Amino acid sequence: MRQATDAASGNGKKSSSSTGNGGVFPSSEKVYIEGGTGVQVPARKITLSGGQPPFYVYDTSGPQEYDVRNGLPPLRLPWIQARSDVEEVDPTCVPVHTDAPEIPDGLKRKTVLRGKDNVTQMHYARQGTITPEMEFVAIRENVEPEFVRSEVARGRAIIPANINHPESEPMIIGRNFLVKINANIGNSVVTSSIEEEVEKLRWAVRWGADTAMDLSTGSDIHETREWIIRNSPVPIGTVPIYQALEKVGGVAEDLNLDIFLETLVEQAEQGVDYFTIHAGVLLRYIPLTAERITGIVSRGGSILAKWCLAHHKENFLYTHFRDICEIMKRYDISFSLGDGLRPGSIADANDEAQFAELETQGELTRIAWEYDIQVMNEGPGHIPMHRIKENVDKQMALCQEAPFYTLGPLTTDIAPGYDHITSAIGAAMIGWYGTAMLCYVTPKEHLGLPNRQDVKDGVIAYKIAAHAADLAKGHPGAQAWDDALSKARFEFRWEDQFNLSLDPETAREFHDETLPAQGAKVAHFCSMCGPHFCSMKITQDVRDYAAQKGLEADEALGAGMDEKAKEFREQGAEIYQKV
Amino acid sequence: MRQATDAASGNGKKSSSSTGNGGVFPSSEKVYIEGGTGVQVPARKITLSGGQPPFYVYDTSGPQEYDVRNGLPPLRLPWIQARSDVEEVDPTCVPVHTDAPEIPDGLKRKTVLRGKDNVTQMHYARQGTITPEMEFVAIRENVEPEFVRSEVARGRAIIPANINHPESEPMIIGRNFLVKINANIGNSVVTSSIEEEVEKLRWAVRWGADTAMDLSTGSDIHETREWIIRNSPVPIGTVPIYQALEKVGGVAEDLNLDIFLETLVEQAEQGVDYFTIHAGVLLRYIPLTAERITGIVSRGGSILAKWCLAHHKENFLYTHFRDICEIMKRYDISFSLGDGLRPGSIADANDEAQFAELETQGELTRIAWEYDIQVMNEGPGHIPMHRIKENVDKQMALCQEAPFYTLGPLTTDIAPGYDHITSAIGAAMIGWYGTAMLCYVTPKEHLGLPNRQDVKDGVIAYKIAAHAADLAKGHPGAQAWDDALSKARFEFRWEDQFNLSLDPETAREFHDETLPAQGAKVAHFCSMCGPHFCSMKITQDVRDYAAQKGLEADEALGAGMDEKAKEFREQGAEIYQKV
Repeated sequence: MRQATDAASGNGKKSSSSTGNGGVFPSSEKVYIEGGTGVQVPARKITLSGGQPPFYVYDTSGPQEYDVRNGLPPLRLPWIQARSDVEEVDPTCVPVHTDAPEIPDGLKRKTVLRGKDNVTQMHYARQGTITPEMEFVAIRENVEPEFVRSEVARGRAIIPANINHPESEPMIIGRNFLVKINANIGNSVVTSSIEEEVEKLRWAVRWGADTAMDLSTGSDIHETREWIIRNSPVPIGTVPIYQALEKVGGVAEDLNLDIFLETLVEQAEQGVDYFTIHAGVLLRYIPLTAERITGIVSRGGSILAKWCLAHHKENFLYTHFRDICEIMKRYDISFSLGDGLRPGSIADANDEAQFAELETQGELTRIAWEYDIQVMNEGPGHIPMHRIKENVDKQMALCQEAPFYTLGPLTTDIAPGYDHITSAIGAAMIGWYGTAMLCYVTPKEHLGLPNRQDVKDGVIAYKIAAHAADLAKGHPGAQAWDDALSKARFEFRWEDQFNLSLDPETAREFHDETLPAQGAKVAHFCSMCGPHFCSMKITQDVRDYAAQKGLEADEALGAGMDEKAKEFREQGAEIYQKV
Repeated sequence: MRQATDAASGNGKKSSSSTGNGGVFPSSEKVYIEGGTGVQVPARKITLSGGQPPFYVYDTSGPQEYDVRNGLPPLRLPWIQARSDVEEVDPTCVPVHTDAPEIPDGLKRKTVLRGKDNVTQMHYARQGTITPEMEFVAIRENVEPEFVRSEVARGRAIIPANINHPESEPMIIGRNFLVKINANIGNSVVTSSIEEEVEKLRWAVRWGADTAMDLSTGSDIHETREWIIRNSPVPIGTVPIYQALEKVGGVAEDLNLDIFLETLVEQAEQGVDYFTIHAGVLLRYIPLTAERITGIVSRGGSILAKWCLAHHKENFLYTHFRDICEIMKRYDISFSLGDGLRPGSIADANDEAQFAELETQGELTRIAWEYDIQVMNEGPGHIPMHRIKENVDKQMALCQEAPFYTLGPLTTDIAPGYDHITSAIGAAMIGWYGTAMLCYVTPKEHLGLPNRQDVKDGVIAYKIAAHAADLAKGHPGAQAWDDALSKARFEFRWEDQFNLSLDPETAREFHDETLPAQGAKVAHFCSMCGPHFCSMKITQDVRDYAAQKGLEADEALGAGMDEKAKEFREQGAEIYQKV
């Protein structure tokens, strides 16, 4: 995020409009940076003490204080309409479940949009058009709009932006931009409600999720999705085969192309921004998994594997991939080409099955690009550290640098309950190597469904991984955040240190556990060393000494400096805090 | 840890003796593997279901069910005495604080040991002697004793083993062995009690800490240390300058060599296994820190910096390094050469000050080796991912592959409250690159003193990092653990999955939150997909199908297999669990 001084001279200017921040981020307010053509890009402004300029951070939390029963305002609708290449149609599918919770009136739409032909951001980009979405993204990422356009045209970045999800604030996924993170939400047959899932979404984006995937598998799958999309300021992804499977009563063998395409249209009309499609699970690859320790662990992958084996036919998502493209281009839905044969354990990492599918992902990427459809490629999973880089190298080569989107990877299997950590290690590394988006893993991975706390823990762990990757990639501006926080730490501006952290609440709570007094938060010491002796304090003494005496480093170390030493001693004795 | 079949043919055999495991590790018991010469090496045996052989893991928890007021049994005393190169002497220092909690009779020792001359493991190793300590380590690491000896002789590994800490179970730190982790404990001026610190120690080793550092800074520093060492099955490290500073009333300028050496002897007699000594903080390096964002963050480093500046003299630990060696060789205390100028922020990583000190660490390493004193080198701190490897490469070159011992490193500064995660990323990577021991960082880092939960969180995060590093280094046997757990996961042996995990309690709790019924723990599905459709289940179907039909992969995919497909469909419909 561009900081104050840059902002004034950049292609965006700070607007005075702001909204509250729900109390999670103290001394923070949402501000909007206005682009030359009027786009309003959100940022979070953190006010600092000690005469420091405010610090601005990327903000995914979306418009605040809207009723979830009305949904968010349709930010992008005017931009979409202005292009005059869409038509309003009746929704083709309005499922009626007598037992499903009804969709509130505020979320109901009488008509939906469909492109007259190709309405993808890639299509516009290749025609040389810079869309408001691209401009929005350029301000958000502090790059030139033309660079955004060229990366999207090249296929090296995507802006997932279904025309039926005008509520979303444009964001970009690509290796030359900030590393993004995805949070999975969604209810299952076993447990959880629609309200909980919407709340998880809002919670996830508040902590920094850049996209969310709705992986619901229950019977209210359509209604859940409608609630989520209408309330989501970030792109929403799904795995359409999950719903298709529901429609055939859970019997994989009964799946067919018509049901699948009908499901795509249903979800396209609702506004899903990217589809995970496991078209790379080919019949001939399935036996390659037979000797694995954990076989096929992707749910989508196993559904297709079962279908292929049952019919002894090639995966119909592969054989009818162009039919799928014809649908997706008319809504600007991005492909997230699934990795149905990803390894589910360290033992199975980087095996023949996995890389065979990756090669097919490359083939499918090129086909999608023929249709100007935006594509990213999903990746694993479980990989030991020394084998992570190979994944990125192969993906970049086989898929022509289309954005890579990985699940972790977990770097060991031995810590269920802590897989946000086992995988944050792998995620940070794979992000550094060039992965564009990291799908979070929560502490509940392999054990159960994430609750609110798990979602937060997963998002924070992945914000850490993504930012560590941005730093390692030398992303311009990334280190400013670390520097601002470290400077606050060094100067004992405790409140600033809390407020600049990913999770101010927790930082403050942890500090207060040891030193609860309000006075301790302005104290020039901390609980680790105590007031008696503090390394930070000494460094300041050293620095002050050098500055006050106007000493050059070399000079101070020259001969005959005993007098200076005496001065320092005397001065030090004064400065020094005694208990 | 060598597994059952190997154990029988290796240089150790399983003994039947076992003790309980305090309930933390269900289906686990402590067993002892007996070496050829009678050493008894602890391991934790995890009993599995489903006809699987038991799994053995490295065990740091030490003898159980001893009263902390009596301390642990002196395992190594007979080995030390048998070498006939030590003498019993009266302790030179028994501090009397009227307000200090008295040391219980069970922990009091009338005499202590001192080497008649050099009694270090390196000294024996260089003479070609394989000590019981080396043999113990060889069984623990599943390598040949001669390899242990040669690595110690070469200086590439150390066995911290003060002759006055006979309670410790020998362990080795070196890049060709399992990566180790250290847990910092210790009270401060501000808070916490001796009892709490001893409990933290026992808690840390239960979860897997390989060594612990007592960083106490309060007035009961001697008593705290006595309690800790007498109850520690793992080597204990300290930073003697902390206590020396207490002795001069906290005034760094008043430190002198006599007080420091006296403190070394006091701690040597108590049994400290390794000393952090900041002898590399040279006067001429101090100004190199003046432009840093966070200056000097090492407490020891800043104490010495202050002393150097106040006297305008060279660091007395550097100028009298050989005097220090003369003491340490007579107790077999290892050097942990401090990195007093380590970076305290991303901005300061890999700077001139840091690497200047590292060069001096190399010089000091070579001097210590002249005295056959075991040495490891401390390293940072805060480093962005792309600059981590340079640290290991330089350390190996400058310090001739002496074991590297790093604090994290944290890979970003923006997440106080989560620095166990920011640093586990760096720790895993630096471990992979060749660091021998990783000093843990708890969630409280930068904010406060770790409580019991923080210690556990720190240890688990670092067990993950260390194991991920072992995997990436291709350490023989490391992957067996991942494979055992993944196999249990794939086969829905839920109890085995929990019991094989680093933290069985948490894994079980997380599972039970979503599916609490006992039946769910034998169910062939999990809460993520529900009973209706499960990828693991499908994989098994695929595998069973292939096995039952005796199909070769290629054959199954050949032409004219429609009949087989039909069979599979029918069979699948039977196998498949419907709700």
